Amino acid sequence: MKPSSSPSEPSPFGPMFTTDEAEQLLGGPAWLQAMLDVEAGLARAQARAGIVPEEAAREITRCCRAELFDAASIAQRAVGSATPVIALTRDLGALVAASARPHVHKGATSQDVVDTAAMLVTRNALALVERDLRAAADECARLAREHRNTPAVARSLLQHALPTTFGRRCAGWLDALGESADALGRLRRERLAVQFGGPAGTLASLGDRGTDVLGLLAGELELAEPVLPWHTDRTRIGELAGALGTASGALGKIALDVKLHAQTEVGELGEASSGGSSAMPHKQNPVGSVLVTAATERIPGLVSTLLAAMPQEHERAAGAWQAEWEPLTELLRLTATAAAHTRGILAGLRVDTAAMATNLARTGGLIMAESAATTLSDQLGRSQAQDLVGQLSRRAVERGTTLREELLAEPQVREVLSEQDVVAATEPGENLGSAGAFVDRALRAHRERNPSWT
Amino acid sequence: MKPSSSPSEPSPFGPMFTTDEAEQLLGGPAWLQAMLDVEAGLARAQARAGIVPEEAAREITRCCRAELFDAASIAQRAVGSATPVIALTRDLGALVAASARPHVHKGATSQDVVDTAAMLVTRNALALVERDLRAAADECARLAREHRNTPAVARSLLQHALPTTFGRRCAGWLDALGESADALGRLRRERLAVQFGGPAGTLASLGDRGTDVLGLLAGELELAEPVLPWHTDRTRIGELAGALGTASGALGKIALDVKLHAQTEVGELGEASSGGSSAMPHKQNPVGSVLVTAATERIPGLVSTLLAAMPQEHERAAGAWQAEWEPLTELLRLTATAAAHTRGILAGLRVDTAAMATNLARTGGLIMAESAATTLSDQLGRSQAQDLVGQLSRRAVERGTTLREELLAEPQVREVLSEQDVVAATEPGENLGSAGAFVDRALRAHRERNPSWT
Amino acid sequence: MKPSSSPSEPSPFGPMFTTDEAEQLLGGPAWLQAMLDVEAGLARAQARAGIVPEEAAREITRCCRAELFDAASIAQRAVGSATPVIALTRDLGALVAASARPHVHKGATSQDVVDTAAMLVTRNALALVERDLRAAADECARLAREHRNTPAVARSLLQHALPTTFGRRCAGWLDALGESADALGRLRRERLAVQFGGPAGTLASLGDRGTDVLGLLAGELELAEPVLPWHTDRTRIGELAGALGTASGALGKIALDVKLHAQTEVGELGEASSGGSSAMPHKQNPVGSVLVTAATERIPGLVSTLLAAMPQEHERAAGAWQAEWEPLTELLRLTATAAAHTRGILAGLRVDTAAMATNLARTGGLIMAESAATTLSDQLGRSQAQDLVGQLSRRAVERGTTLREELLAEPQVREVLSEQDVVAATEPGENLGSAGAFVDRALRAHRERNPSWT
Amino acid sequence: MKPSSSPSEPSPFGPMFTTDEAEQLLGGPAWLQAMLDVEAGLARAQARAGIVPEEAAREITRCCRAELFDAASIAQRAVGSATPVIALTRDLGALVAASARPHVHKGATSQDVVDTAAMLVTRNALALVERDLRAAADECARLAREHRNTPAVARSLLQHALPTTFGRRCAGWLDALGESADALGRLRRERLAVQFGGPAGTLASLGDRGTDVLGLLAGELELAEPVLPWHTDRTRIGELAGALGTASGALGKIALDVKLHAQTEVGELGEASSGGSSAMPHKQNPVGSVLVTAATERIPGLVSTLLAAMPQEHERAAGAWQAEWEPLTELLRLTATAAAHTRGILAGLRVDTAAMATNLARTGGLIMAESAATTLSDQLGRSQAQDLVGQLSRRAVERGTTLREELLAEPQVREVLSEQDVVAATEPGENLGSAGAFVDRALRAHRERNPSWT
Repeated sequence: MKPSSSPSEPSPFGPMFTTDEAEQLLGGPAWLQAMLDVEAGLARAQARAGIVPEEAAREITRCCRAELFDAASIAQRAVGSATPVIALTRDLGALVAASARPHVHKGATSQDVVDTAAMLVTRNALALVERDLRAAADECARLAREHRNTPAVARSLLQHALPTTFGRRCAGWLDALGESADALGRLRRERLAVQFGGPAGTLASLGDRGTDVLGLLAGELELAEPVLPWHTDRTRIGELAGALGTASGALGKIALDVKLHAQTEVGELGEASSGGSSAMPHKQNPVGSVLVTAATERIPGLVSTLLAAMPQEHERAAGAWQAEWEPLTELLRLTATAAAHTRGILAGLRVDTAAMATNLARTGGLIMAESAATTLSDQLGRSQAQDLVGQLSRRAVERGTTLREELLAEPQVREVLSEQDVVAATEPGENLGSAGAFVDRALRAHRERNPSWT
Repeated sequence: MKPSSSPSEPSPFGPMFTTDEAEQLLGGPAWLQAMLDVEAGLARAQARAGIVPEEAAREITRCCRAELFDAASIAQRAVGSATPVIALTRDLGALVAASARPHVHKGATSQDVVDTAAMLVTRNALALVERDLRAAADECARLAREHRNTPAVARSLLQHALPTTFGRRCAGWLDALGESADALGRLRRERLAVQFGGPAGTLASLGDRGTDVLGLLAGELELAEPVLPWHTDRTRIGELAGALGTASGALGKIALDVKLHAQTEVGELGEASSGGSSAMPHKQNPVGSVLVTAATERIPGLVSTLLAAMPQEHERAAGAWQAEWEPLTELLRLTATAAAHTRGILAGLRVDTAAMATNLARTGGLIMAESAATTLSDQLGRSQAQDLVGQLSRRAVERGTTLREELLAEPQVREVLSEQDVVAATEPGENLGSAGAFVDRALRAHRERNPSWT
Repeated sequence: MKPSSSPSEPSPFGPMFTTDEAEQLLGGPAWLQAMLDVEAGLARAQARAGIVPEEAAREITRCCRAELFDAASIAQRAVGSATPVIALTRDLGALVAASARPHVHKGATSQDVVDTAAMLVTRNALALVERDLRAAADECARLAREHRNTPAVARSLLQHALPTTFGRRCAGWLDALGESADALGRLRRERLAVQFGGPAGTLASLGDRGTDVLGLLAGELELAEPVLPWHTDRTRIGELAGALGTASGALGKIALDVKLHAQTEVGELGEASSGGSSAMPHKQNPVGSVLVTAATERIPGLVSTLLAAMPQEHERAAGAWQAEWEPLTELLRLTATAAAHTRGILAGLRVDTAAMATNLARTGGLIMAESAATTLSDQLGRSQAQDLVGQLSRRAVERGTTLREELLAEPQVREVLSEQDVVAATEPGENLGSAGAFVDRALRAHRERNPSWT
Repeated sequence: MKPSSSPSEPSPFGPMFTTDEAEQLLGGPAWLQAMLDVEAGLARAQARAGIVPEEAAREITRCCRAELFDAASIAQRAVGSATPVIALTRDLGALVAASARPHVHKGATSQDVVDTAAMLVTRNALALVERDLRAAADECARLAREHRNTPAVARSLLQHALPTTFGRRCAGWLDALGESADALGRLRRERLAVQFGGPAGTLASLGDRGTDVLGLLAGELELAEPVLPWHTDRTRIGELAGALGTASGALGKIALDVKLHAQTEVGELGEASSGGSSAMPHKQNPVGSVLVTAATERIPGLVSTLLAAMPQEHERAAGAWQAEWEPLTELLRLTATAAAHTRGILAGLRVDTAAMATNLARTGGLIMAESAATTLSDQLGRSQAQDLVGQLSRRAVERGTTLREELLAEPQVREVLSEQDVVAATEPGENLGSAGAFVDRALRAHRERNPSWT
């Protein structure tokens, strides 16, 4: 296996698909430190179990700092064994005092270190994702409350349907973000477990002390203690992939809505920091939403890769496990990036309520046709009411009038409805059903999740 | 849109990818009935809310039986509107007494019916999947207990590594199945929610009674009441996809292990109903595992499809929602099929403990090299012990002896270890570390999940 | 393996995801007949090789008609061996005269029959897909020619950018369809090869006559003769998946554009058979595009499934091959459906050139800002020209005037440009660059592909 | 959009998933240089068209060297506009002499630069992949020729089936590699086209000179000239993804076979540089194949991402295009890595023909059962022959004899077959059918592809 150079030169695309914070938690140094944290934690756990001298554990812990290691060299040497841990432990052994050397990596196998490090890295990255999902949810809650009663067009199949409120739309975003954050939080608290089983998943070299050390190691690293080593049981990875994929889908939905409402012809929403174009000054490019979309569109493929890698052979996989490392990191990075940008988009969202009103009026009131038909149904029966409203709608289009005008002018209508009735039935703001109640419910749920939110 | 015939002719492949039970819960008739159950439940809920006459609700409920409808015609007419619900409600309206007609599908939109029906179909299918996952787990538990102390080769990267027990392997399968079933159970209980929002997600036509009816409908159908309509919030679908993908990965892992252990050269496991070959009588085709693999390999692609479809436009998607219907059904069907076959495979698994012993001996005891080196480490230091054992291992290969023989013949070894020590260090069954303890822990966890298991 | 019922009941969703023609070529009966065609072709090939009596080959051919077989029974019995071919050949053996019986399925293995049948089914389905891609391309060509000079807004990142023509847009669709059809045609002609290798891929039971029969079989079935059996070399399947995925992406792009241009606020395009809504008479649901989208969004997952299944074990896969059957069929069906609907959408497309003009004017001429700046660059330098135009653009927005008006009123501009110059620089139809030339090039390429097109 | 740091720190995993050569062609500097090559090529093309002064083109070309640019800064500034090209052209403008400045990036849009750069990067990377695929094919050809007559077990469903030769197996690998390389070569030569359309795909700012410049630019960069700009026609990307996915599947198949044949119990193949384990000296870890598998398992997800991104809005996508950049690079990198490792694995493959013979004998000759039955069929009829051989096979298993011994001892057999006949029918090396002929055909095809191969 010829060693190869690391893909470490700055890519012209890189920063668009990460953030400073994500990079700090998910980059090479973070992974290296996480693996060293596992080695240190293991030494301390074994010291507490009386298997390793206290002093050796202290010495090992002292040396387990990423800056003491040649990361590039470890990465290069990983190629020959398909794991970076052999080189890492060799270098760690060379670094510690001779007396501590025999106590490095005791009883562990490479996968114990990489998997537990993955859990540490994931724990930090999930906390970041959750923070930004909840912050984005706060923005949605603010918008939902502020625009609880702002009428807007509801659209189905990209066509005007009926009125809704902008707050109701934001309440939908809010609920999806809250559920996504909850699901990630649950996994973070319950399912991120230490991996420790030795080469065969039996902890053979620790005799009958294996399970003791397992528990102590979990305590040292503040990870869950698994029922048993999970080298080729990848349900944890599958669950993570599913939950990150779901969160990402919720973020992608918001970006899609922002982009659609920011279209030149629609103009209801705009991003604060729209990427302008010197050549095209009228353009308000929804750059943040473009980046969120670019990130989230890559997620389903990564999730499928991690799920497809779940069936792993025997006690250690010959490729499928190794296939997880970069995609899991990417999945966390892209979700974190999408969450951070979404938070920023929502915080700075420009809401054009006048445009919302203009769009509501754009069909000459035809958007109120269902409402009018419903109102007429009590007197005329549903079928006849719908036929009549359909006929008046077509007439309004032909004549360039509004539906309200045609309703007021139609004797069949005026026999059963007063002018006031007709106006009420064709006023978007009066026909919003439970839109406000749904906003209130979503805000209540948000407050239950985040009692400090105001 | 030219109507087209339904893909309803028997496929030569179909039965390999479903089961009778799955078909009953997921086939066309089940979907049709589920949609009718929603219409009936809605009428009853509105009757309880005082919006629809009791008698009308009874009449609608009476007519909401799939056998009264022309399923093929409804399916054909769905093409023109991209939804089967318009035809369905038209036919239902024609079926009920005239007095009930105005009360059919009141306030609902097509998506309310399809989504809620999807939740009903999913609820039933998940219960089936969970039942078979738990039954498969029972079999794993039985095997783990029975073979708690049966030594077997642990393999990493498809190479012999160290000894483990067959029970330990089964305990790993067991834990993955238990976790997968728990995750599905939680979703089934908590996240399958009624969909009811009307065309704009505001329940506009119900005035201020929308949320009342929403709650009553949830009660009628025994589904959760959502905070608000979730037409374009597809987190529930994403979560389902992730959890089914994870369960499927756990099943695929078991099938992979069974196939590898059933290889002619390995021979440790066999399926009870191996597909024999008249032409090749020695073949013991692991047919069940082949079918499980064939099903589970299709899952990650379906999961990615559902996740990619999550970003849906505005208040009703123009394609992404419609893209969910068949993949969700397939996902449920294939997972159910894989779970059913896995249960059957495990129930009938032929375990050849003699082959396990033969394979353990196959490397002339080299599989005990790490154990021997660990034992010698205390006296010689780890590095020297490993070097010595490595040297003796090579010698054993060259001479055609066993590692034990070479250890016993080596003065450096005999200075520090007795014959008994050497035998103990090279006896697979004596070097199993926490294998038994891990089995016990997995059995304990299984019993906590299934108190009645014995 | 408990037999299970076939998923053959009509699904309420089925017809939305297929067409009559696709169903005829891809349904259960088509697959069964294709497998029988292989058995018949094999008998005839072996008769021509002198290995099987002519009469036996005639008898076998006579019996190889799907209607003589119990498809459901064959499908059920497939479960026990993970292949329908054992039951099929048994039934065929029972059907033919006793003298022909020993000559049924001679030298073949199950995979020979299924794979070659897959090639036959694929050949027919590809021809259908190509026909509809080319017919859709014809419609694009017609639209491109007709609207070669129809100005329209070009949009980037969902924002107005510069003018283009509607014909230029159609020319882009046209080229993608032509390339996609070509790629499928090439695969159909060159890469659909007969599979024939016997259980080990050696044609052992035919002694030294194997390759002769292989060639004759290819001739009988009008498929390519492969260099050697390709049981676990799935490059053909991978290539098919890639090409169908690409065609599907090209179709999805058109549907996306149609939907976006059919938005209520945009109104430039409409489908002839828009699914109206009685309740919402103003809605012009782009139902065809919704169905195309719903089909094409499912394709990438299917492609990934087929690619992931490519690494197949040894001489016959234990699951990955079997995983191909339904996804390959789905891939063909969904692409055929998307192609058929796209053809229909384009044939009936309503083009609203007035709306195109209205949208061009919507930004008060700001869409011509780049054009104005380019015109001014020669005199003022690019940088100063851009600054000036940017300033005038903002002024136009503030004052509610048009960019043209501001340019005409601005002394710096009028020093270097005449009124006529300003008008020319701000007239969309005069600033279309090579749009017309690109249309002509695309039409020329289309004519080269389809010489009869007029 | 807060700028973020680049993911440029060395990852502990990076080198396992790339090679030095791949990194040089696909890393950040290669991308930056490719974008600059496009800018330089454009200036020269426009000079040749008489649109830009020769001297300006020379000056721009002189400055278009990556080392003159601050790559990290460009990458950071890309975040604000979702494209690195704005910062790049700004820096290039600042670098060139003032007289050349107005001629930088003339008429181009960001996507012209990124897409054309992608084609340049892809061209180089494809050449690398093809080189290694063909070198790997050379090794397969060598092995196929050398082992044309080396009997080995053919396995189906992971069970012994019939004899084949190791050469026949290698011939299968060979054909897949050759086809994959051909497909990539065709795309490289025919489908890598320059992108040049300006912001609206009309080349508006070049007046009527657009298509001239397009052709000249293609000439400068030695890329194909497209019929028209393909900003949102991503068929090229889809085709590339499909072809790389297919090549990757062919590589994954070889790695899978190597791993399975290297299993401790099988022992037929080994990698030259197997990663040994000091603790487990008997392990011959197939490290190369593990890395190939780890790379190729990630490909289908990347392909699905690129295909899912094909439907792009209007004239410039709002996210889907941007989603391509990293996955396309990854796809090329991982395929190149897999090809390089496969080449190395095959070049150093240890072939244990004795193990092949041992495995052939492992079932006591039952692997010859079909052969024996075929031989007996002429005299006894196929059905009776199969029954008899089945019976004798079971007897051999029970008695611990071989099938040959039982055949020789069975009167029914000896009535119709001589001892010599029985020996011949049960000798693997005599029952290989067309295995040798298939090897010869594959070698002939290889030689046609690579006339210099010897």
